[in-house]
Formats: sequence, C-alpha cells, structure tokens
Amino acid sequence: MAQLLAIDWGTTNRRVYVLDANGAVLATDRDDRGMLAMEGRDYGAELDVLRGRYGDLPVLIAGMAGANRGWREAAYRSCPAGIAELAESICWMEPGRTGIVPGVSFDSGERADVMRGEEVQVLGAVQAGMAEPDALLCQPGTHCKWVEMAMGRIAAFTTAMTGELFALLRRDSILSGTIAGTVTDGEAFRHGVAQARRGDLLANLFGVRAGVLLGKRDAEESASYASGLLIGADVAARPLDRPVTILADPELGGLYATAIELCGGTGRIADSHTAFVAGITAIWRAL
Amino acid sequence: MAQLLAIDWGTTNRRVYVLDANGAVLATDRDDRGMLAMEGRDYGAELDVLRGRYGDLPVLIAGMAGANRGWREAAYRSCPAGIAELAESICWMEPGRTGIVPGVSFDSGERADVMRGEEVQVLGAVQAGMAEPDALLCQPGTHCKWVEMAMGRIAAFTTAMTGELFALLRRDSILSGTIAGTVTDGEAFRHGVAQARRGDLLANLFGVRAGVLLGKRDAEESASYASGLLIGADVAARPLDRPVTILADPELGGLYATAIELCGGTGRIADSHTAFVAGITAIWRAL
Repeated sequence: MAQLLAIDWGTTNRRVYVLDANGAVLATDRDDRGMLAMEGRDYGAELDVLRGRYGDLPVLIAGMAGANRGWREAAYRSCPAGIAELAESICWMEPGRTGIVPGVSFDSGERADVMRGEEVQVLGAVQAGMAEPDALLCQPGTHCKWVEMAMGRIAAFTTAMTGELFALLRRDSILSGTIAGTVTDGEAFRHGVAQARRGDLLANLFGVRAGVLLGKRDAEESASYASGLLIGADVAARPLDRPVTILADPELGGLYATAIELCGGTGRIADSHTAFVAGITAIWRAL
Repeated sequence: MAQLLAIDWGTTNRRVYVLDANGAVLATDRDDRGMLAMEGRDYGAELDVLRGRYGDLPVLIAGMAGANRGWREAAYRSCPAGIAELAESICWMEPGRTGIVPGVSFDSGERADVMRGEEVQVLGAVQAGMAEPDALLCQPGTHCKWVEMAMGRIAAFTTAMTGELFALLRRDSILSGTIAGTVTDGEAFRHGVAQARRGDLLANLFGVRAGVLLGKRDAEESASYASGLLIGADVAARPLDRPVTILADPELGGLYATAIELCGGTGRIADSHTAFVAGITAIWRAL
C-alpha cells in the first residue's frame, strides 16, 4: 500500500516515486517540470495534482525545489551529514505532511562546496549496500560530485564542472567545430585521459585543435579525446585509494570507470534511482 | 623614407605599420578588418587601398591572413624557428613585393601546438633587447602563448585557453551571474592564484559559486577570484626558472606579473607593438 510520495526535483527534470512502507516502488514517473520550468508556478498546486493522481500521501522532496530559486530555500546542512542529520533538518512546508530535504555544504577553509539532491542518492547507496560506509562515490554529470563517506555519513565532497565545461567548449568555443562528434570509450578517449594525467588542462584543451591542424588526430576522434582530457583531469585530482561507486547510466558511468582504471583505481557502476529510493526511504523512517 | 608596409593581421583586428629602412615607425593605423571581417572580401584590393594611402611599398603580413580561413595558407614552420627560418619560408603572393610570414608549429609527441602572428613578436622582443635569447615569453589573451627561446629562436611553446575559458564561463555558465564584475589585481585575485596552485581547476571553478552561496566571498570579488583561479592554473603549469617577459598591456600583463610572482617567478611587462616592429624589420632584412 502506498505510504509516501518521494520527489527528486532537479534543475530540469522531476521524478516522482510512489513508495510502500518497505520502500518498494509501486509507481514512478519522470517529466520536465524541474526547478527552471517551475519558475513563477505554484509548487503547492503541483503537489495537489500528484496527490490527486497517486493518493493523499505525505510528500518528501529532495533537490533544487529547496534552492533559493525553488519553492522555499531549505538551508544547507554542513558535513558530516547522515540520514539522521537530514531527517532532523527537514524544511516542513506542512508539518509531517510535506517536507523538503536540505542540501549539504562543505567548507575545507580553502574551498567551499554545496550539493542538493545528490545527498539522498549517496546516503541511499550505503543504505542499500551498493557502497561501503567509508566509500568514495562519484556522480558524473554537468557538475560531477565526488563524495567521501565516513561511517555512512557524508564527510567531505568535491564538485567538478566537468560536464558543463565540455558542453560550453563544444557549443561555443574555438573547439566547437573540432569536437562536434560522438564520445566513445575508445583509444582517443584513453589518450585524452593519459594526457590529462600530465596536468595543464588549459594547454591540453588548445592542443585538441592544434592536433587536428597538424594532422596528428582526425577531427572525428576529437570529441572523445577532449572528453578524455576533461574526465581525466577530474578523475586524476581524486584520491583513488578505495573502490569508487559510480552512480550513473552505463554510458557516462563507463567513461568514468575507464578513466578511474587508467588512473590506478577501480570503479563500479550502480543505479542512481535505486540509491535515491533507499535514501529517501531511510530519511522517512528516521523522522 | 618609407620602405615597408608591415601588417599584423589578426583574427579581429589589423594593425598597419609604415617603416623606414631602420625599422622606425613613420605611421601606424589600427582597424577592425581582421580575418573574420575579411571573409568573402579581397585581400589584394585591401592592399591596393593601403598602398594608395602610404605609398607603393613592399608588404609583409603576419598573423591570421596566413591561416586556412585567411588569404592564403602559409604552411607552419616547425620549431626551432628563428628570423632566418621564417624569412626562408615566406609565402610570396607576389615575389619580393607581397609576402605572408608563416606561423610556427610545435610537436612534443604528446602535445601539438600552433601560433600565427605571435612568432614575430617574440623573435622581435629578443631582437630589440627586450628579452634574453634564452628567455621565457608570455603573451596573455584569449589564447595565452608561453614561448621558450633558445639562442634567439623559438624552441618550444604552449598555448593555454585561459582567456577564452574565462569569457565562456562569464557569458554562459552557472557562474555567469557570479563573475559578472570587474577583475582587479587585489586580494581576491591573489586568493584565486593561491588556490589554483593546489590544482583541481574543475573543482575550484565550482567553488566560486559555492563560496558566494555560503557567504565566504562577496559576489563583487568573484570575478577577480575566478580570474585568479584561471591565470593561476595557467602560470603554475609553467617552468618559472627564468624571468618572464610579458608582452601585454599593463592591465592584463599586470595580472600575469602578479601571478608569476606568487608562483615564485619574476615577470616584467614589455610593449608588444615595439616587439612586432623589431621582429618584422629583422625578417625583412633577412630576405
């Protein structure tokens, strides 16, 4: 029997899960009503629609709905943060009925970082036994998160602008024409990772174009090579002293797994939806 | 008496120098008829106009007019390349009367690089006594060039996408709003350089936004901090075992000089126009 509506409310997409008391998924739905599409719209009315569809259930929301540009800002909880800390800091829109899970912040003194939505996935991955309580987790994407767990809680994390930078370079830079092709996990990608490990990302990127001009590399291989340079620079900066659990689809996750292996580590891909459901269920139970 | 029309024909701008036999500048003019503005237009007719204005003189052209999207592709000359090598490889449109100076290519095996136009400036800087024959030269900008000279010739060089990346991030990324302000050579810039020296550019860039969200830094300081991250990453990757001659205006050159100093080197700014004139005059004399 349905007990909870859990919503992973991201920047561009939204995914709804209807969960029973054991955290089993009775129904799920994904649409493009992310935070950006919701600007100027009524979150409460959206929840009425969802409750009309799935039943008059309690709702737990994670992600960008809790950002300053979302429904209501749910203040960041600082590291270390686990299931108990997040449950304690829920931002209640209606007590016990509609709540927003806070994001998590990190401050090493030298560098500050924030996440919103990813915290439920990484905590859930440990809950579901997909990652060790002291794991290193990787969530590739526009802004790739690397999360160090300690005793099942988020101890520290780093966000890298890897995906966004690749998209910017592809769309609107001197490399645009050169890196227009498809990225595949082949030799060109691996060469990019190897070159990235030597450091000097700013120069390596210009070398993508120069390599084509001088006939060292075909233009069709350049997207994969450039992706290798960026993902390689991202991975090479991480401590790979323990296995990495990669929460991603097989394609992007596979590129990261390859780069991690080339940098001397080991990575295994795990399903981010399963991780989210385990995390939100654990938070719900801890309330 | 005028002896030579020398043209620094760049991507977006063009600068004409009327030189006498000693390389003294009798007149100079700058306009926006760079390579991009010339697409589909007649370079020969443009030279007729210039000769009508300044006299029926020989013309030496350096820069993007010799690129594959320019007037005619002047094949790259590979390193090591000095005045004699460039003079030997002039691409003559009309022998002895209208010539294009070739660009220079570099290939370390691992990384390829190209330049077009900058070679005349760096060789000229040595000719004019503005840099030692074994100097390291820096030409900041959209694509920052670092040139290692050996016995007055270009021995090796590296191009970093520093300026272009800053422009991309400012215009069209998640950092756009955050780094909209003015860049100044103050504490925030220096903090950026210090952070850049720790490596991990991809994560440091996301930290610009997180730092503002968490109240660690004012939004007004963020442009300077981000500039420090990028220029710092660029400078920290270079061998600063000898003084750096920076060919740039005092503003951008000053930021690089500060970053070089913070990374343990020394930099002095020199005038790029003087360097260009000395270089093109030396090539002309070597013909």
